[in-house]
Amino acid sequence: MVPERYKEMLGKKSVIREMFAYGAKRAEEIGYDHVFDYSLGNPSVPAPKDFQERLLELVQSEEPTKLHGYSPSLGIESTKNAVAKSLNQRFDMSYQSKHIFMVSGAAGAIAHAVRAVTNGGDEVITFAPFFPEYIPYINSTGALLQIVPADINTFSINFDKLLEFFNPKVTAVLINTPNNPSGVVYSTQTLTKLSQILSEKEKEYGHPIYLISDEPYREIVFNGVDAPYVAKLYHNSLTCYSFSKSLSIPGERIGYIAVNPQCEDADILVDVFGQISRGIGHNCPPSLMQLAIETVLDKTSDLSVYEKNKEILYEELKKLGFECVEPGGTFYMFPRALEEDANRFCERAKEFDLLLVPGDSFGCKGHFRISYCVDTPKVIRSLEAFHKLAKIYK
Amino acid sequence: MVPERYKEMLGKKSVIREMFAYGAKRAEEIGYDHVFDYSLGNPSVPAPKDFQERLLELVQSEEPTKLHGYSPSLGIESTKNAVAKSLNQRFDMSYQSKHIFMVSGAAGAIAHAVRAVTNGGDEVITFAPFFPEYIPYINSTGALLQIVPADINTFSINFDKLLEFFNPKVTAVLINTPNNPSGVVYSTQTLTKLSQILSEKEKEYGHPIYLISDEPYREIVFNGVDAPYVAKLYHNSLTCYSFSKSLSIPGERIGYIAVNPQCEDADILVDVFGQISRGIGHNCPPSLMQLAIETVLDKTSDLSVYEKNKEILYEELKKLGFECVEPGGTFYMFPRALEEDANRFCERAKEFDLLLVPGDSFGCKGHFRISYCVDTPKVIRSLEAFHKLAKIYK
Repeated sequence: MVPERYKEMLGKKSVIREMFAYGAKRAEEIGYDHVFDYSLGNPSVPAPKDFQERLLELVQSEEPTKLHGYSPSLGIESTKNAVAKSLNQRFDMSYQSKHIFMVSGAAGAIAHAVRAVTNGGDEVITFAPFFPEYIPYINSTGALLQIVPADINTFSINFDKLLEFFNPKVTAVLINTPNNPSGVVYSTQTLTKLSQILSEKEKEYGHPIYLISDEPYREIVFNGVDAPYVAKLYHNSLTCYSFSKSLSIPGERIGYIAVNPQCEDADILVDVFGQISRGIGHNCPPSLMQLAIETVLDKTSDLSVYEKNKEILYEELKKLGFECVEPGGTFYMFPRALEEDANRFCERAKEFDLLLVPGDSFGCKGHFRISYCVDTPKVIRSLEAFHKLAKIYK
Repeated sequence: MVPERYKEMLGKKSVIREMFAYGAKRAEEIGYDHVFDYSLGNPSVPAPKDFQERLLELVQSEEPTKLHGYSPSLGIESTKNAVAKSLNQRFDMSYQSKHIFMVSGAAGAIAHAVRAVTNGGDEVITFAPFFPEYIPYINSTGALLQIVPADINTFSINFDKLLEFFNPKVTAVLINTPNNPSGVVYSTQTLTKLSQILSEKEKEYGHPIYLISDEPYREIVFNGVDAPYVAKLYHNSLTCYSFSKSLSIPGERIGYIAVNPQCEDADILVDVFGQISRGIGHNCPPSLMQLAIETVLDKTSDLSVYEKNKEILYEELKKLGFECVEPGGTFYMFPRALEEDANRFCERAKEFDLLLVPGDSFGCKGHFRISYCVDTPKVIRSLEAFHKLAKIYK
C-alpha cells in the first residue's frame, strides 16, 4: 500500500548525495586526502567559538527541564525577538517577533512558505540553474514548479524568458541569491526590475504574487559585490534563511522564515506556518538549538576561505580554457563542461578522483557544479587533476 | 492566497496548548506555586545525568564540522545501529539499522508512518480516547481518521465496535499504549486479539493492514502492569517512539520509527520515510541530538515520581467520589467529570486554579484529563482545590 509517488521518488535520489556517498566510499579505498570531493555543500570551516561556548553554557547552566522542554509551537519568543531585532538593525526592516517562524533549515522554510501561499495546481516560478531539491519541496505541496531557462552568459534572471511564464495561476516566484549552483549574486538593479514586474503582474491578476527568497548563502558574499537584502525591495516577500552555512551547522537543521511586515496576510502567515508544521508532525526546531543561535545571530564562521578557494579555482580554470561566470558569493561555481554531455564529463573527472556534479539536475545541461567548501591545500592539490582532465579534451 | 484549509485550522487550536498558555499567564498573576497546572504533558523530572554528560562530551570533544555536519538523509548509521541493538536485546526482535528511521519525535513518526502506508481516501482507525493531535497528523496526509468510540468502563480496545469500522479502505490502525489520556496499558491478551483480527482482515481484503503503534510512554509503566512490546505480537507493525518522555527532552524533537522486519515492504519503508522527509523539507533530526541519545538509549529520567503522583491523586479522587479507570502507566488519568458537560466542569475547576483539560477533544465527552507530570508537593497542595471543586457538586 506504499503510494506509487514515493516508490517513484526512490528511483530519483539526489545526484549530489549519491556522488557524496561515492566519495566517502572512495576515500576508504585510497585515503581521504586523495579524493577531491567537490560534490556536497557541507561547510569545511568550524562553527564559531561563540556558538560552541553558548552551547556549553546552556548545557552546563540551564535547568534541564526548561532547556529541553517543549518550545511554544511558533518558536521560542526570545529567539524570535532576537532574529527580528538583528534583521531590523542590519537591513533597516521593521520585523516583530510575530513575523518570525523558526524552522528546520532553508529546506523546511521553503516547503512551508510554498504550502502557505499556494493551492493545488498553482504555479511557482524559479530560475535555472536551481537547487534540484526544489523539485521535491514544491511538488510535494501540490503546486507546480515552472523553470525559466538559464541565461548562461550571466546566470542572472532571464527576464525575456520570465515574461513568457506568467499567467494567473502563478502565486509565487522562488529565487536563490547568492545562488547555488552558480555563485552569482543578484544585483540591486536586477531585484528592483523583478520587483516591478511582480507588482505589475499582481495588479494585472488581482492577487498577490509572493517572492520566496532562499538565502542560506546570504553571509557568503565576496569582496565588493552588491548583495541587497531581497525583502527590502519587494513587499510580498518571505525570507527563507538557514544557519547551516553561516555558522557551519548544516546537521543541526535550524533556520527561519521572516514574513515581510508589508506583506499581504502578514499577521496570519506565521500562524499558518505553525499549522503546516502541526500537520506534518514536525512542530518546532529543537529548543536547545533555538536557544543556542539566539546570542550568535550576527556571528559567522571564518568564511574567508571560500573566497580564497574561489580565486584559486576560478583563475586556474580560466587558464585551462573553461568558460565560467565568476561567482560573487557562496562556495559554488558552475563552469561549462568541456564536452556537451556534462554527465560523461563528470564520469571522466571521476577517473582522476575529481568529484564534480553534472548540471543537468540543476536545470542547465552542459555545465557542472564545483562545491569548493574544502580546505585550501586540497584545492591546490586538486589543480593537477583538473589539468589532467582538461588535457583529454585538448 | 493562503489555502482555506489552513485558515480553518487557525480556529481549531490545541485545547491543551491554550490551557497551558492560560496557566503561564495566571502564574504571572498569582505565582507559579498557586497554579495547579495539570494541562500539558511536559515532563517534570530532569533529563538523566548520562544524557547531559554525553551532550557536554560531544560539544567539548567532537570536531565541530563533523559534530554539526549533515546527517545522512536516513539518519546517522551508528545511532540507527544502537537503536536496533537496544530493541533487539530488550524485546527479542531482529531489527537491523535499515529498519530504523530517525525522526522528530512521535508526532513526526506517526505522520510519516501514515503517509507511507496510505493513499488519499484510505482509512486509519484509532480508538477513543485518543491524543487530539492525531486529527491534524492524519488529515494532512489525505487519509481519513475513523474513531472507534471508547469503552468507558476499561478504556481498553472496544472490540465490538471495532468490527463495525472495518472495510477494504482501512490500511492502518493506530494505537497508543500506554495511553494518553487514560493511562491505560493494553495487555498481551488485548493485543493478541487485535493482532488476530487484523490478520484475518488482511486475508479478507487481500492487502496489508499496518498497526501503527504510538509508544512515547513505553518506559512509564507502573508496578506489576503487563506491558508487552506491540511489534512482537503483529507482523505489519510500525513502532513510533519518542525520547520526549523517557529522557525528559520533549523540546529536542527526537524519536524513531522502527519497521518490523516481518513487515510487508520492510526493505523499502525506511527509504520511503526518507522521501517523505525530503518532500516536507525536513530531512533528519539534528545531528547533535542523534549522537546524544546514542549512548543513553536504555537510560531514563527518574520516572518513579509519576507513579507516586498517580497513587496520591487516584486514591484521593476515588474518596471524593470520582469514577476513574486506574492508570497502568503514563502521567495521565482520565476521570469522569462531576457533571455531564466536561467543558463546564473544567471551567469551574479554573476558579480554584486547577487546570484540567476537558475530554471532548480526546473523543470522549464527560471526562477530563489530568497530566500529573508536576512535582509531588504541588500534587499534595492541589488536593484542597479538588475538594473544593467536588464540594460544589455535593
